[in-house]
Amino acid sequence: MPANQQIHLVSRPTGEASLDNFRLVESQTPPLQPNQVLVRHHYLSLDPYMRGRMNESKSYAQPQPLNQVMQGGTVGEVVESRHPGYQSGDTVVGFGGWQQYSVVDAAQPGVLRKVDTTHVPLSHYLGAVGMPGVTAWYGLEKIIAPKAGDTLVISAASGAVGSAFGALAKARGCRVVGIAGGAQKCRYVTEELGFDACIDYREHPDTASMSQALKAACPNGIDGYFENVGGYILDAVLLRMNAFGRIALCGMIAGYDGAPLPMSNPQLLLVNRLKLEGFIVSEHMEVWPQALKELGGLVASGKLRPRESIAQGLAAAPEAFLGLLKGRNFGKQLVKLV
Amino acid sequence: MPANQQIHLVSRPTGEASLDNFRLVESQTPPLQPNQVLVRHHYLSLDPYMRGRMNESKSYAQPQPLNQVMQGGTVGEVVESRHPGYQSGDTVVGFGGWQQYSVVDAAQPGVLRKVDTTHVPLSHYLGAVGMPGVTAWYGLEKIIAPKAGDTLVISAASGAVGSAFGALAKARGCRVVGIAGGAQKCRYVTEELGFDACIDYREHPDTASMSQALKAACPNGIDGYFENVGGYILDAVLLRMNAFGRIALCGMIAGYDGAPLPMSNPQLLLVNRLKLEGFIVSEHMEVWPQALKELGGLVASGKLRPRESIAQGLAAAPEAFLGLLKGRNFGKQLVKLV
Repeated sequence: MPANQQIHLVSRPTGEASLDNFRLVESQTPPLQPNQVLVRHHYLSLDPYMRGRMNESKSYAQPQPLNQVMQGGTVGEVVESRHPGYQSGDTVVGFGGWQQYSVVDAAQPGVLRKVDTTHVPLSHYLGAVGMPGVTAWYGLEKIIAPKAGDTLVISAASGAVGSAFGALAKARGCRVVGIAGGAQKCRYVTEELGFDACIDYREHPDTASMSQALKAACPNGIDGYFENVGGYILDAVLLRMNAFGRIALCGMIAGYDGAPLPMSNPQLLLVNRLKLEGFIVSEHMEVWPQALKELGGLVASGKLRPRESIAQGLAAAPEAFLGLLKGRNFGKQLVKLV
Repeated sequence: MPANQQIHLVSRPTGEASLDNFRLVESQTPPLQPNQVLVRHHYLSLDPYMRGRMNESKSYAQPQPLNQVMQGGTVGEVVESRHPGYQSGDTVVGFGGWQQYSVVDAAQPGVLRKVDTTHVPLSHYLGAVGMPGVTAWYGLEKIIAPKAGDTLVISAASGAVGSAFGALAKARGCRVVGIAGGAQKCRYVTEELGFDACIDYREHPDTASMSQALKAACPNGIDGYFENVGGYILDAVLLRMNAFGRIALCGMIAGYDGAPLPMSNPQLLLVNRLKLEGFIVSEHMEVWPQALKELGGLVASGKLRPRESIAQGLAAAPEAFLGLLKGRNFGKQLVKLV
């Protein structure tokens, strides 16, 4: 059995997460039991939701246990199988965690899925054609439910969710405006992802300024908003929402360190008869096949060309993750292991 | 043509509304044109939404114009008609405003509706079997959409919307908990309106205390919330909402004077995957027939016995209205003119 490096969570953050919260641990993969499969991970996915799970407090998921391998999505290759449905060389997506190998009970439904890399690169199954892509699809299709011609806005537009959202929104005939940090990301959002406009939040660091920028970028107001960050950006968007607008609440990364993050003017939800809905895509598995089909088609046809930030080697995962929380990534953040 | 006393809005409030904002004006009703009907008002309805319309700022309705009669719902009796569908003595509900008489173009759809007072007292068409009742119905049925056994909470529970909400929720097999101001109102909410429990917000004047009271009254958490007031009560409810809870946002009376009213912890909307929706019942006329039928049945069968606060005479309307904004009414606030 191969040696297996792992990253464990060894302490919970107070305030910002730091490298001290993680430790690299050496272990051995155990021998396979019947129906088990040994997967060698090619890429780990790093996602903002992981920060929430590092806290002990009540959240939408069980907290990440201490002194165990950090949980997370993975893609890789089957290297040994005692399950009849899998054989060596199969490319698979799963939830193997921050480690080089995982042993999977393949008889459990949903834990492992074979994927075809003919038209879609393996890593994209952790991004545009994976959880982040389906997240964008669900918020757009099931909560915002736009009509052609609607104006939609998304924060963290250059990331994995944002890039998929842009392509899906354009396919539905919407005007789509991104919010991202820095001129380089904004250029990518408009020039490569095909957004109609992008607002650099670093140039608009308060509610009034962001609200003016949104007014300029959204001359007909905002019909739908996909929220990844929270804080003053949400306040500014609320000032520009049209009557009967819809807000898909997917993340509030600005509040993950535990700082209070009030919404300044919730009366606007009433005044403009808005609908706001929080969701977690893993609770809506029924939509995944339909969403993945559309997303895979957009990637295969070149209409969705998502960018990736790739850290090299398992030991680099904690630092890459902390960078993601600060917006230092540019596109989907991955860790390459092979 | 009869003399007609009216109340005009003569200035807009800065901060709290006051008696100075209103003036009693004497006028004459004009002679009837073809298709017009002259209605003598028996009762005026006073409702919290009127405060929002006294402001000039953008809101969900056109502002109440200055130096014109205050707009609002009315019930009364036709005293003269030049429309073939109406005759003297018909009892009608309409939107005649704060005045003794109104002249109505009865050919316009929806402006006047004949009502039957055999089983439902005329005044109830301004309350339980009128706009407030339908408001409760819409928020419950279309936004909260409860299952039997769900726990539902409503603020301003002893008012017109609250009393209808309680009866509708009990008819659907829910546990229903009210929030009201003072022991007397709370007793009425449980003993006469049939709520399972009622929390006196005067005894719980901050988020932590209200949250504890909600925990005690809602041992299984809160599945649906009907919001009439906003502020710290909403913050406290958010701390007790179950996953996938629904919030119908109907009013935020605490913020009508223009004071900021932030939501302290909007992350809870995400953590608990809540749905929150603002609405105005006048934009959903399609549900009125179904809602009024159920509400009329509840009143006729004695399952909904709404209380009324009745001010005497048109001149008393402004003071009664200001009292309503302070929660001094007890049940549906009306002004009796006849």
